[in-house]
Amino acid sequence: MTRTGTSHLAYLECSVCGERHDADRPQNLCACGAPLLARYDLLALADSLTPGDLSGRPPSLWRYRELLPVRDPQHITTFGEGMTPLIGLPRLGASLGLSRLMLKDEGACPTGTFKARGAAVGISRACELGIGRVAMPTNGNAGAAWSAYAARAGVDTLVVMPIDAPEVTRRECTVAGARLLLVDGLIGDAGAIVGRAVRDDGWFDVSTLKEPYRLEGKKTMGLEIFEQLGGRLPDVIIYPAGGGVGLIGIHKAIGELRALGWYDGPSPRLVAVQAEGCAPIVRAYDAGESQATAWEGGETVAFGLNVAKPLGDRLMLAAIAETGGCAIAVADGQLLEEMRGLGRLEGAFICPEGAATVAAARKLRESGWLAPDDEVVLLNTGSGLKYPETVDADPPILQPGESVPAE
Amino acid sequence: MTRTGTSHLAYLECSVCGERHDADRPQNLCACGAPLLARYDLLALADSLTPGDLSGRPPSLWRYRELLPVRDPQHITTFGEGMTPLIGLPRLGASLGLSRLMLKDEGACPTGTFKARGAAVGISRACELGIGRVAMPTNGNAGAAWSAYAARAGVDTLVVMPIDAPEVTRRECTVAGARLLLVDGLIGDAGAIVGRAVRDDGWFDVSTLKEPYRLEGKKTMGLEIFEQLGGRLPDVIIYPAGGGVGLIGIHKAIGELRALGWYDGPSPRLVAVQAEGCAPIVRAYDAGESQATAWEGGETVAFGLNVAKPLGDRLMLAAIAETGGCAIAVADGQLLEEMRGLGRLEGAFICPEGAATVAAARKLRESGWLAPDDEVVLLNTGSGLKYPETVDADPPILQPGESVPAE
Repeated sequence: MTRTGTSHLAYLECSVCGERHDADRPQNLCACGAPLLARYDLLALADSLTPGDLSGRPPSLWRYRELLPVRDPQHITTFGEGMTPLIGLPRLGASLGLSRLMLKDEGACPTGTFKARGAAVGISRACELGIGRVAMPTNGNAGAAWSAYAARAGVDTLVVMPIDAPEVTRRECTVAGARLLLVDGLIGDAGAIVGRAVRDDGWFDVSTLKEPYRLEGKKTMGLEIFEQLGGRLPDVIIYPAGGGVGLIGIHKAIGELRALGWYDGPSPRLVAVQAEGCAPIVRAYDAGESQATAWEGGETVAFGLNVAKPLGDRLMLAAIAETGGCAIAVADGQLLEEMRGLGRLEGAFICPEGAATVAAARKLRESGWLAPDDEVVLLNTGSGLKYPETVDADPPILQPGESVPAE
Repeated sequence: MTRTGTSHLAYLECSVCGERHDADRPQNLCACGAPLLARYDLLALADSLTPGDLSGRPPSLWRYRELLPVRDPQHITTFGEGMTPLIGLPRLGASLGLSRLMLKDEGACPTGTFKARGAAVGISRACELGIGRVAMPTNGNAGAAWSAYAARAGVDTLVVMPIDAPEVTRRECTVAGARLLLVDGLIGDAGAIVGRAVRDDGWFDVSTLKEPYRLEGKKTMGLEIFEQLGGRLPDVIIYPAGGGVGLIGIHKAIGELRALGWYDGPSPRLVAVQAEGCAPIVRAYDAGESQATAWEGGETVAFGLNVAKPLGDRLMLAAIAETGGCAIAVADGQLLEEMRGLGRLEGAFICPEGAATVAAARKLRESGWLAPDDEVVLLNTGSGLKYPETVDADPPILQPGESVPAE
């Protein structure tokens, strides 16, 4: 029943009212309207699994299979996602005045963003539960990831994204055979269109936090950081929060590590970074609220952060509060400058959302919120390759036979 | 001297005349004009290292540090490259009539292509040897990768690429602070420009196979396939050959596995795939030659394959001959069709060069060269994200409040 190697998924629990739901049939939100969280039999697992048992397993997120919801390995749909690099940033750290700065680089995920984690686990579990058609709104990258995993699993996909979403994500959805629609609006408008399709046409809704398993994929970022640091956690994790599932997932992972008895140190302070042009969580944090109100007319180059009213607002704000973290907004100009600075100093080409964490680290160091020797992990959610327009390149053109001109 | 954990690099050996060269100072080609190969003290290593020793090491190519040239770990410049996924392709395999088809997906490498491997090892070793300025011609992706690693290491970089190279690679070089020039010609023209800069301005030449360590990075693909298959090798590896360093590197890796006593089975048959628009290796293979002649006016959408006269021609043709492999050309139309077909069937968005291997597998299966139960690994050298223009996407646009139209 609870052998090592098998999922220890027990039930689903409402994140607000606590109501329990059957995990072995398709579920969306609780009747009270809140997201459901997957709960595991961690007591049984603590008796049968140790961190050392993981060390020889393949470097994908499926190494944490006991803590994931897929019961039968034959339903696992994978491109080998997970165990992304955690690398030091010594030059950038020196420029920021942070001696222990690291980057968790999700650009190495299939489809080039961390969205692959949620899609891998979400699609795998959907297949296991017999779901053959999924629909979602997206700011681009989640749609691309879910389209790819759905194609591999033979699941039909309907994706609706804002017309301003990163252009390459349209091509990714298309090459994977998804049905793709654009909306001349924001992700909330896309969500409304998907909502009607779900109601009228029987698509299964896999919108952010409207099914419980995307979160389970995202939480593996926290498990990996723990394992990659040799069974420790850093002082601070800085995360670019749009829908916020990664932040919520990392917080959930830390709780599970504690319940397993694998970690009993202080929690990393979790920082949610948003763009000044769309910062509902920062506004709620600053006001001491436990919920966010919708941000009107959001606009930012970090398109993944353009989420007016995330469904996970309560969970994010709770994670920040419980860990002594904070929420902070940065300007588009700041994050674009940090993106280029990171390229020059460390060679990495990260996405605008990831660059927002660099801008946040600089501000938090300047304000003293970060100490010089805090161990800080920046979470880069995707590859800069998906945002080519953020870098201008206008190199000189030579004719064959010419020589390199003097600088 | 030859402890486990340290590089067992012994000397450099000319691939044609056999002359030995000192490995601990900067070297380019042999006086005879041929590439140099790194040789290791494999006898000593065989006594001190077993495959089982590798299993707990981090999932990057540096797990093979004994078989890599970097002597002092402090010189390692890394973004966590290597141990890319090796995934099954059951649906594509069924469509091709190949029951054991796999993809080694180098799109997961930093910078989105396998070029990261050569750059990681090449730049690390250059730093160790005190080289502070490197120059190279490139069809785009190698320049992007070397620029990134050089920036991280604090090495200056001069990159010259054809004007038709993938557009995003210009931006990658630029964000990493490389000096970038375009040439209105092919990579050979870029190489001539670099050659003069090397001669006149003291840049160190890191052109393909003109220094010995890029190859060492590329060979780790072969080591990983061996380890990922549990200490086996497949029947066939199909590789898209431009400069051919990966093919040569995999062949070199197999030789080293044998010398270590870790593998004594048959060699995988190595297949070099080229584009019909630029196929010097295929032409030489078909004519039974051991060297290629320059291809005039090369043109293909698989831009990485547009190499008129690879310096590694002899090594490639020898690797093919020694393993009972072959060389085969595919049309641009075929590879683009396979690229989209793979997307529909398996969800993966691969690069045109990688798609050429699918087209080759289809032809080789149809001709009977591949048996239905051959275990075949396709090597996808990069992410389709770097080639967005290969997929057309023209989705319908809705206004907020509209519903999904009937299909």
